[in-house]
Amino acid sequence: MSEVEDKYGSSFDVFEILPNIVRNKDKTIVIKYGGNAMFNHDVKKSVIKDIVFLKMIGMRPVVVHGGGPAINEYMNRLGLEPEFVRGQRKTSKETLEIIEMVLCGKVNNELIKMMNYEGAKAIGMSGKDMGMISARKLRGEYKDDGKLKYYDLGQVGEVTDIDPYIFDILTEYDIIPVIAPIGMGEDDIDYNINADVLAGEIAGEIGADRLIFLTDVDGVMTDPDDPSSLIDEIKAKDARRAIGMTIKGGMIPKVESSLKAIDRGLEKTNILNGMVPHSLLWKMLTMERIGTTIIP
Amino acid sequence: MSEVEDKYGSSFDVFEILPNIVRNKDKTIVIKYGGNAMFNHDVKKSVIKDIVFLKMIGMRPVVVHGGGPAINEYMNRLGLEPEFVRGQRKTSKETLEIIEMVLCGKVNNELIKMMNYEGAKAIGMSGKDMGMISARKLRGEYKDDGKLKYYDLGQVGEVTDIDPYIFDILTEYDIIPVIAPIGMGEDDIDYNINADVLAGEIAGEIGADRLIFLTDVDGVMTDPDDPSSLIDEIKAKDARRAIGMTIKGGMIPKVESSLKAIDRGLEKTNILNGMVPHSLLWKMLTMERIGTTIIP
Amino acid sequence: MSEVEDKYGSSFDVFEILPNIVRNKDKTIVIKYGGNAMFNHDVKKSVIKDIVFLKMIGMRPVVVHGGGPAINEYMNRLGLEPEFVRGQRKTSKETLEIIEMVLCGKVNNELIKMMNYEGAKAIGMSGKDMGMISARKLRGEYKDDGKLKYYDLGQVGEVTDIDPYIFDILTEYDIIPVIAPIGMGEDDIDYNINADVLAGEIAGEIGADRLIFLTDVDGVMTDPDDPSSLIDEIKAKDARRAIGMTIKGGMIPKVESSLKAIDRGLEKTNILNGMVPHSLLWKMLTMERIGTTIIP
Amino acid sequence: MSEVEDKYGSSFDVFEILPNIVRNKDKTIVIKYGGNAMFNHDVKKSVIKDIVFLKMIGMRPVVVHGGGPAINEYMNRLGLEPEFVRGQRKTSKETLEIIEMVLCGKVNNELIKMMNYEGAKAIGMSGKDMGMISARKLRGEYKDDGKLKYYDLGQVGEVTDIDPYIFDILTEYDIIPVIAPIGMGEDDIDYNINADVLAGEIAGEIGADRLIFLTDVDGVMTDPDDPSSLIDEIKAKDARRAIGMTIKGGMIPKVESSLKAIDRGLEKTNILNGMVPHSLLWKMLTMERIGTTIIP
Amino acid sequence: MSEVEDKYGSSFDVFEILPNIVRNKDKTIVIKYGGNAMFNHDVKKSVIKDIVFLKMIGMRPVVVHGGGPAINEYMNRLGLEPEFVRGQRKTSKETLEIIEMVLCGKVNNELIKMMNYEGAKAIGMSGKDMGMISARKLRGEYKDDGKLKYYDLGQVGEVTDIDPYIFDILTEYDIIPVIAPIGMGEDDIDYNINADVLAGEIAGEIGADRLIFLTDVDGVMTDPDDPSSLIDEIKAKDARRAIGMTIKGGMIPKVESSLKAIDRGLEKTNILNGMVPHSLLWKMLTMERIGTTIIP
Amino acid sequence: MSEVEDKYGSSFDVFEILPNIVRNKDKTIVIKYGGNAMFNHDVKKSVIKDIVFLKMIGMRPVVVHGGGPAINEYMNRLGLEPEFVRGQRKTSKETLEIIEMVLCGKVNNELIKMMNYEGAKAIGMSGKDMGMISARKLRGEYKDDGKLKYYDLGQVGEVTDIDPYIFDILTEYDIIPVIAPIGMGEDDIDYNINADVLAGEIAGEIGADRLIFLTDVDGVMTDPDDPSSLIDEIKAKDARRAIGMTIKGGMIPKVESSLKAIDRGLEKTNILNGMVPHSLLWKMLTMERIGTTIIP
Repeated sequence: MSEVEDKYGSSFDVFEILPNIVRNKDKTIVIKYGGNAMFNHDVKKSVIKDIVFLKMIGMRPVVVHGGGPAINEYMNRLGLEPEFVRGQRKTSKETLEIIEMVLCGKVNNELIKMMNYEGAKAIGMSGKDMGMISARKLRGEYKDDGKLKYYDLGQVGEVTDIDPYIFDILTEYDIIPVIAPIGMGEDDIDYNINADVLAGEIAGEIGADRLIFLTDVDGVMTDPDDPSSLIDEIKAKDARRAIGMTIKGGMIPKVESSLKAIDRGLEKTNILNGMVPHSLLWKMLTMERIGTTIIP
Repeated sequence: MSEVEDKYGSSFDVFEILPNIVRNKDKTIVIKYGGNAMFNHDVKKSVIKDIVFLKMIGMRPVVVHGGGPAINEYMNRLGLEPEFVRGQRKTSKETLEIIEMVLCGKVNNELIKMMNYEGAKAIGMSGKDMGMISARKLRGEYKDDGKLKYYDLGQVGEVTDIDPYIFDILTEYDIIPVIAPIGMGEDDIDYNINADVLAGEIAGEIGADRLIFLTDVDGVMTDPDDPSSLIDEIKAKDARRAIGMTIKGGMIPKVESSLKAIDRGLEKTNILNGMVPHSLLWKMLTMERIGTTIIP
Repeated sequence: MSEVEDKYGSSFDVFEILPNIVRNKDKTIVIKYGGNAMFNHDVKKSVIKDIVFLKMIGMRPVVVHGGGPAINEYMNRLGLEPEFVRGQRKTSKETLEIIEMVLCGKVNNELIKMMNYEGAKAIGMSGKDMGMISARKLRGEYKDDGKLKYYDLGQVGEVTDIDPYIFDILTEYDIIPVIAPIGMGEDDIDYNINADVLAGEIAGEIGADRLIFLTDVDGVMTDPDDPSSLIDEIKAKDARRAIGMTIKGGMIPKVESSLKAIDRGLEKTNILNGMVPHSLLWKMLTMERIGTTIIP
Repeated sequence: MSEVEDKYGSSFDVFEILPNIVRNKDKTIVIKYGGNAMFNHDVKKSVIKDIVFLKMIGMRPVVVHGGGPAINEYMNRLGLEPEFVRGQRKTSKETLEIIEMVLCGKVNNELIKMMNYEGAKAIGMSGKDMGMISARKLRGEYKDDGKLKYYDLGQVGEVTDIDPYIFDILTEYDIIPVIAPIGMGEDDIDYNINADVLAGEIAGEIGADRLIFLTDVDGVMTDPDDPSSLIDEIKAKDARRAIGMTIKGGMIPKVESSLKAIDRGLEKTNILNGMVPHSLLWKMLTMERIGTTIIP
Repeated sequence: MSEVEDKYGSSFDVFEILPNIVRNKDKTIVIKYGGNAMFNHDVKKSVIKDIVFLKMIGMRPVVVHGGGPAINEYMNRLGLEPEFVRGQRKTSKETLEIIEMVLCGKVNNELIKMMNYEGAKAIGMSGKDMGMISARKLRGEYKDDGKLKYYDLGQVGEVTDIDPYIFDILTEYDIIPVIAPIGMGEDDIDYNINADVLAGEIAGEIGADRLIFLTDVDGVMTDPDDPSSLIDEIKAKDARRAIGMTIKGGMIPKVESSLKAIDRGLEKTNILNGMVPHSLLWKMLTMERIGTTIIP
Repeated sequence: MSEVEDKYGSSFDVFEILPNIVRNKDKTIVIKYGGNAMFNHDVKKSVIKDIVFLKMIGMRPVVVHGGGPAINEYMNRLGLEPEFVRGQRKTSKETLEIIEMVLCGKVNNELIKMMNYEGAKAIGMSGKDMGMISARKLRGEYKDDGKLKYYDLGQVGEVTDIDPYIFDILTEYDIIPVIAPIGMGEDDIDYNINADVLAGEIAGEIGADRLIFLTDVDGVMTDPDDPSSLIDEIKAKDARRAIGMTIKGGMIPKVESSLKAIDRGLEKTNILNGMVPHSLLWKMLTMERIGTTIIP
């Protein structure tokens, strides 16, 4: 990755970025921030500065974050054994309590603190605040011999409704919402929600202009081992066809979430490597080709 | 306590409460909710309903909560030994992380969820949201032979500044703020703050009309073992004199916080037994003499 | 009626009414208040308190009143002979002046005074204020031998237009409008309007959620002499068919007005006995089956 | 008066009135309209048009009216004998009810109807609306042999408080308030208030710029029988001294009310003959010397 | 013209103009002011007063002006030879600079100064302010032997877009916009735009109610030499047919602009003789038949 | 100057400028732009971009400009001989007309066009717009033998009043005001005003935070020929003393204007070399020591 890093820096040319600042003024950018890009403190600090910078020059970032390795660490410390069903983590009531504490009380709190420290005004929330994210149990399903079969993932949920009310208020007062992916069930049970999926749902519901996944790979690659195989830009319909083929693993929810959001009117979505210094700024402020862009 | 409970119920007479509804319309009521009154699920549910009820009939509750026994439970599970200095818990960096996770990710989340479930709009916050509570290290001090001596309590803090901005916004949009007592240090270190003290500071800063401590005793009693010794109403100057005498233990921060808030213009403060069903409503909506009231 | 009265009182259980307060928050309720329920001072005082109570807990009452026996009293004192055509009172220019003085200068003034005394903010109006109710002469008609025949009722009018402008303003400032049923004719002649009909027209025009007739009978009864024959709930289309059959006399304008308002989008209308203490509150705040409800 | 009338007409020169329109834009003008200037229908129609004209060109008229001979007419018809104490009418409870009905239900209603008919938006009110005029019993007093003696005038009141709230709202929405001089007593008894006095109190409370008395004489005259003795302009301190001397009878409350209002900051007050066609417009829009002006 | 002038004056009768003031309140009136009606200082002063008068009594004038003889004067002084192509002035880059300086720096500045002096609040603008008028090169074309032929007029432009944003702001704050007919080209070259055409485009874009051409002839005449041949009122479809026949020369852009604006929803347009004193007021405030009115 | 230019460029480091963006958010910056820094097209384009950049990142620039050499050019072309009195240009009525045309119709129009082209929203104004700058004749004076003597500078004016109203409106709608230094006299005569002085008056009146002079020298230098003698920062009281000594010529009005503005509450003023690329950005966004700063 060193080559990539050499290419970029933290300096931007006024003549180049001014038109992009003008063009993106007042645009709402939902940023999913997760994975290893949250692990390293320096990377995190740089990402936070970038987000605050975008805010300061007139954009409206909304941040959705994942849990990083912090959840695993606490589960270990509490002696909780992870349980997996078909490769997905099953979430028990006890596990969810830990997840929620770590996501809201630790990860989210750290992010807003860093943003406020840089001069922005940020508020941390989960789906319980204002009851804004309603969710229900997600039914795990797979095909076996052509027949659908189901399995139980516990308190893993899917979004049934998002109330955009609080987003409008925070936008009006220039406050950055930072959201932990916890949903409130109608049956009074909480759910853990995939943050990639949630980011797309929020982007669609609040009529965001852009959805960005800050992750730890460079984007969609035809050959994961060959950086030069990075797909620079892909149309939604081509991306749909590529799911399960070139698009695999953790890239799938990002792309599916992108496609759903594009169907609801987004201009474009980006998958960026958060480990590359200022990738967010390079993408939003310059014409630099970086990451994978999905367009309608 | 059974006698007391017999006296009260959940029914209110329209003819009696209407004048109080009118009188208290648009009044801001800071409610410190803590201790054992948060322990029992039924009591908690009833308290939450009372707060939502006050909101619905036109008052503006602001809730500050403590941690209840949940913090202890998690510290035990994580094998952390409590350390005490002169009877006060010393807060290490590691302990604070647990405290913050439990306060924000568990206790606070449960409270707002219950409020939202009852039909109110509530948002959970700590002092890190909007950087609204600034704090600094509290210096433990005691007198020994007439000389002041100091000891270290770790990351236990005192409030240096409260930014009322977010309260104004939430008030305008009829949202109940629910606040966990965590402060943001200028030195980038967080602090655990006494919730009684924080409630008073907030009440003073946002120009609240009333400050109520919902706790697990009936109020200030001259003889803690004799319910009939309850002091119904006490003037600020008399209360000041009684500190260390009739007013002892956990009652001290409540009274000191009350006095400070009254100095900044509050109408009155109440110390109520949250275990008594609907004590909050009886106090705010009827002429019933209940708990201890401190007046200017 | 004593049995009924025994059943009700002025006490309400917080646990029962909270969900109804939440559900009805910000709902606009047009209340037609008239007949004998306005005659007795204690009943009137209680009804006024109920209306103020609904306002204080977040609903938006709009009151339309009739004239009660006060008009008759003044007509007698002034030696005016009532004149009837086919059972309807014919309104001469002189009579209308008395009606208007009594409705606006006495009945309406008393109602707003009582509301303001209870802590609400109320303003009295007639259709002349802001020129908000336009009316034209109502043509009395009947069928004779299959042919329509007409007769003259003098200055009795029907609504041709209602200007919702002032209602929006008063709603914004939390003021209760109290309206006397006088309309302003384009031909510069005023008209007396049936208050039941006017209430429905206003409800339709301002997009009210609910229309309530507070009268002096329990509701629609299949046998007026048998309280147990009260129809609890009736669908609009069934009510339409029952007009002239089960629905007779003074109940007809109430039901017709209800049907018209439901056609314009109201959730439901209620016919309640204003003589029953707090019938308004029981209906709006509890699940008690009381009065007759007409649903779409 | 015919000479005076010849001098004036309803035509105004754009070049003359434009600077006055600019100068008086957004100024609040309290107009006391009463006496015989309300008796003649043509005069009334012309006065109403003038008021609406002032409103349309940007001023903010607030109208306070008296009762005219309509009260006497109804008292006669109802066989009520007027009772006088030291030349002032004593108001019994029964009389007040008639006064209120006539003022609010007849006189006020006619005025607002005419204004709305001319294209303005007017609302009729008395002190009961919003409880905006608080009053108490006025104690009649006179000196006998150097000692103060008191007598009872019944429900004649003096203003104790005026709530400007509704005036602010109506001003914001370009609505003309038309006010009948009835006050709401704290003891739940209403009072009849002198309209000249009330106009001054309102002007003072709402911070009006100008107070105009539209009456049926040309102004303050040193010799009431000699029109040429009209005092064109008088300073407040000179007017104070002239009370009881040149200033007599019904002119006294007008002047005293003027002085009180000037003390509270009014620019000036005018006493005009409402019988002179368009005297209001001549005064406000031209440099014509007409009526008596009291200046600070 | 003296006969016409005798007929009119600067005096208006309140009884006549009040209904028109009411009817035209808050109406947006685009006024094209140009030609010889701008040449004479007294006429100009009178026209300015009329516009300010309309503003003061509640209408919303928007003024578009031409250049008058001032442009010619400066071109002569600078020794610039006018160049004509098929009877139209060809605008070189150098000429446009002079035109712009004279229109914005002299003519426009004089108009706003006079308005502000009369007590209005006016702001001068050209299409460059806020980039509000976008234009492109107008292609001169004519038919020769049935074939379209083109010629070059230099920097004469046609409107491609008008941004109504600033008009909304100025309207909200009661400011009169005064606009010089200069357009901003996408290719970074400015254009001179026909002021008649621009007035119609603006009227259409901002949803004006009325469009008035203040020029130096009495209106559309069947015989230009016979004042009695003035067409009082003409329907749009008849006007369309008359172009090139009765409607000739400088009247053509006025009528074509009118028709286009009427197609976009205007109530009517007027062509008035600005040399006739107060023709604008007579048209807007009385029923006087003056000028030519084009109706849908 | 090449050395200086080498030092600077158009690239800025996010880590360095973020804190300055935060610190200067919503600050109002009055920028006097004039002299040779307006002469070169490339320099002008770069300065315009810098101003738009500051606007886009949240500051509120207000631009006051001078006339540059464009006035001289047109005076020459029109054959007008400049007339000087004691080294100052005497402004005749005819000269002022040229000055106004060039300033408003050419220089100002070019500036706003360039800003709008870069994506900002700018409006050009002179003191005649809204009548916002009132001025009176400036009396030239000098001392001869200890006696004050006066001379006539024609229509050169000094500011008597500035109306901040329009600035508030434009600020609210994110519009950059660009102001030509022409004042409106009470005596209906216009005046040419020194742009340095006007910038200071505006800064003081609208409560600006900062005042910046973009000129063509590096700042205040003790030896004008030695760039290294540049005074980096100077206190107001020291600057006052240095006037006529180190501070000479065209620097005097800049410094005097600065001192006056600082007296009225400005944080600081800067004198910068507009010829140095991006000096405005370097000053506002970095800690670079550039130009001369005057502090309270």
